[in-house]
Amino acid sequence: MILTPELINDLRVRRDRLQESMQQMGVDACLLCTNVNIFYVAGVVYTGYCYLPAEGDPIHFVKSPQSGLPIEWVPIRKPEQLADLLSERGLPRPRTMLMETDVVAYSHMARLLEAFGLAGAQNASAWMRRMRSVKTDYEITQVRQTARSHENVYAQIPSVYKPGMTDLQLQIEIERLMRRAGSVGIFRGYGDNTEIFMGSLLVGDNAQAPSPFDFALGGEGISPIVPLGANGTPIKDGQSIMVDMAGNYGPWFTDMTRVFSAGRLPDQALKAHQVSIDIHEAVLEKAAAGFPCSEMYGIAARLAEKAGLAPNFMGTKQQAKFVGHGLGLEINEPPVLTPRSQEVLEPGIVFALEPKFVLPGVGAVGIENTYLVTQNGVEKITLCEEQIIELA
Amino acid sequence: MILTPELINDLRVRRDRLQESMQQMGVDACLLCTNVNIFYVAGVVYTGYCYLPAEGDPIHFVKSPQSGLPIEWVPIRKPEQLADLLSERGLPRPRTMLMETDVVAYSHMARLLEAFGLAGAQNASAWMRRMRSVKTDYEITQVRQTARSHENVYAQIPSVYKPGMTDLQLQIEIERLMRRAGSVGIFRGYGDNTEIFMGSLLVGDNAQAPSPFDFALGGEGISPIVPLGANGTPIKDGQSIMVDMAGNYGPWFTDMTRVFSAGRLPDQALKAHQVSIDIHEAVLEKAAAGFPCSEMYGIAARLAEKAGLAPNFMGTKQQAKFVGHGLGLEINEPPVLTPRSQEVLEPGIVFALEPKFVLPGVGAVGIENTYLVTQNGVEKITLCEEQIIELA
Repeated sequence: MILTPELINDLRVRRDRLQESMQQMGVDACLLCTNVNIFYVAGVVYTGYCYLPAEGDPIHFVKSPQSGLPIEWVPIRKPEQLADLLSERGLPRPRTMLMETDVVAYSHMARLLEAFGLAGAQNASAWMRRMRSVKTDYEITQVRQTARSHENVYAQIPSVYKPGMTDLQLQIEIERLMRRAGSVGIFRGYGDNTEIFMGSLLVGDNAQAPSPFDFALGGEGISPIVPLGANGTPIKDGQSIMVDMAGNYGPWFTDMTRVFSAGRLPDQALKAHQVSIDIHEAVLEKAAAGFPCSEMYGIAARLAEKAGLAPNFMGTKQQAKFVGHGLGLEINEPPVLTPRSQEVLEPGIVFALEPKFVLPGVGAVGIENTYLVTQNGVEKITLCEEQIIELA
Repeated sequence: MILTPELINDLRVRRDRLQESMQQMGVDACLLCTNVNIFYVAGVVYTGYCYLPAEGDPIHFVKSPQSGLPIEWVPIRKPEQLADLLSERGLPRPRTMLMETDVVAYSHMARLLEAFGLAGAQNASAWMRRMRSVKTDYEITQVRQTARSHENVYAQIPSVYKPGMTDLQLQIEIERLMRRAGSVGIFRGYGDNTEIFMGSLLVGDNAQAPSPFDFALGGEGISPIVPLGANGTPIKDGQSIMVDMAGNYGPWFTDMTRVFSAGRLPDQALKAHQVSIDIHEAVLEKAAAGFPCSEMYGIAARLAEKAGLAPNFMGTKQQAKFVGHGLGLEINEPPVLTPRSQEVLEPGIVFALEPKFVLPGVGAVGIENTYLVTQNGVEKITLCEEQIIELA
């Protein structure tokens, strides 16, 4: 593995942004140890600690020595060595530090704080998520590449459908298309307990089944240990097939939902689907840098209400209280598009908008696209037929 | 979803064992909030807190109300409510508590400790892993069911191989077989950063590539964000294909490795494979309840040494320092079979033994089986052709 010149340059851009923010906050350093944040700073995944001082080069402390890591690194066995290893390099012990307090386990964090002689730390988890939400040009190029794979796979879905399939059988064929198109498999989400495998395919009333996790829609799943998604029921005429499979064709994700159907759906479902498309168009028209995220939820909720679809908006028995979310190295990043969001759009933010409606007896309809915020507006990144596609 | 009478009975058995242990330790209660431990106690996954007092019924505090949860539950919004919700039920505030300190995030744990007015907690992460390592009869039945699916999928592998395939193409076809056989997809591992998708398939010299994670062997992977496993290189004559795909056909896992080959492997590889089989037979002959785990490593290491294969044992550039591990709801449970293990086998422990050899230019050979410890010995659970199978 090598780091390309473009990536090396981009790592420098990311690091400069992080260090500028650290200097503004007046913190001495940041210590990262989760895969996603190490990858963001180092360009590779390793087990260990990425120490980023407010000025100067990051130091990569690597626990499992990986031959072939294309970066300079320092071997480490345990967190207690960190302070000494810094001293050996002539670096001062940080007095204030950002650490991933929302993710790193209590006992691990206690050892780290003790190792640095600190009573507490500032929250690097929330800070990194906020910093990562604004993408660099390199990241945006990566997002676009993922979108092309995502679109290509969705275009092949009609070719793998056979009448009489179950939801799960169709999902398995789509998973195979995805993997053949370069899906990395792992679908990274932030947050306790949020487990999802390769995305969600919901048919008929399974779209109403609530899940314990914070996804837009749930589904019963096939095992009590993974209570989410397809549940193995046969696809019947007049049911919608909502495909919200992962855009995990590289480190940076895209999110896209399209609807297929077995036979023709009832008019009510076609109308609801069109309301979702109308919401996307209304947001595309109004949103831009500076636009409040809460207002994107507002646009969606008002159009849903006006169409008499409030009871179907984002679920029935359990309604999700958001209509979209940022995404990048994780499928759920800031901002979250809720009625109470305090965030406004910034250039470089990549977000997914997913106004969906669940109709008892039919299933879920509505589309999801990934958008990039620009200076003048928002640009649709996921380009793929938006009307419901009848399968035969 | 419903809980079967067998499961309800088994949940009682598990709870009695946990409470007996808590009473012996003199702790008042245990608070669980990770999917795997909640599932172990409740039989279902929910987001929230499972409060198990040293005596009496567990209380399930559920954050995302899931209609249809087949258990009694109490709604909760935030951890700060816990103490009041206990008081309302006439339960005393615990003075000593087991909490998942090795897994739950620092900031979450700090809120929980504050909510209970505690300065610290005992380690429920390590305790639950130890308690879960000894399986109930119900769990053993589940492990056997998973083994049957695991075996059936491996038996179908020759049917999906085509000459000229890459390692990744073959893996994708196996993943499809797995999913069609009921694989739940998610492959649950314990520990920071340990990410794996549906298992590992290693061909030729990719078996030498080290990974940042604590698996027996690594592999380069197809993306820097998931540095593990198949790397997309074509399978060539004379190379071994080591298949160590997940036994995730239900909540309880099995672990099994078999070796296939493109054409015939060199004699040295066939001999090394036989040494692995010999190690399994030596362990089967000697191991039983009371047998030291370190000695299983010892048997393997001595037979490897005797065959002149020490430099190839468990890797080349980076050699894993274990030869097996417990498994159950997670793929890596106690005991770990290392030279320094202090643990001894107990009846009901399920473990995987995986003596493997990596031969430069050929790839990895050796088998892995899942075993159950009984009073009188160990029983092989994964029953499947153990010789190398030539693909054509």
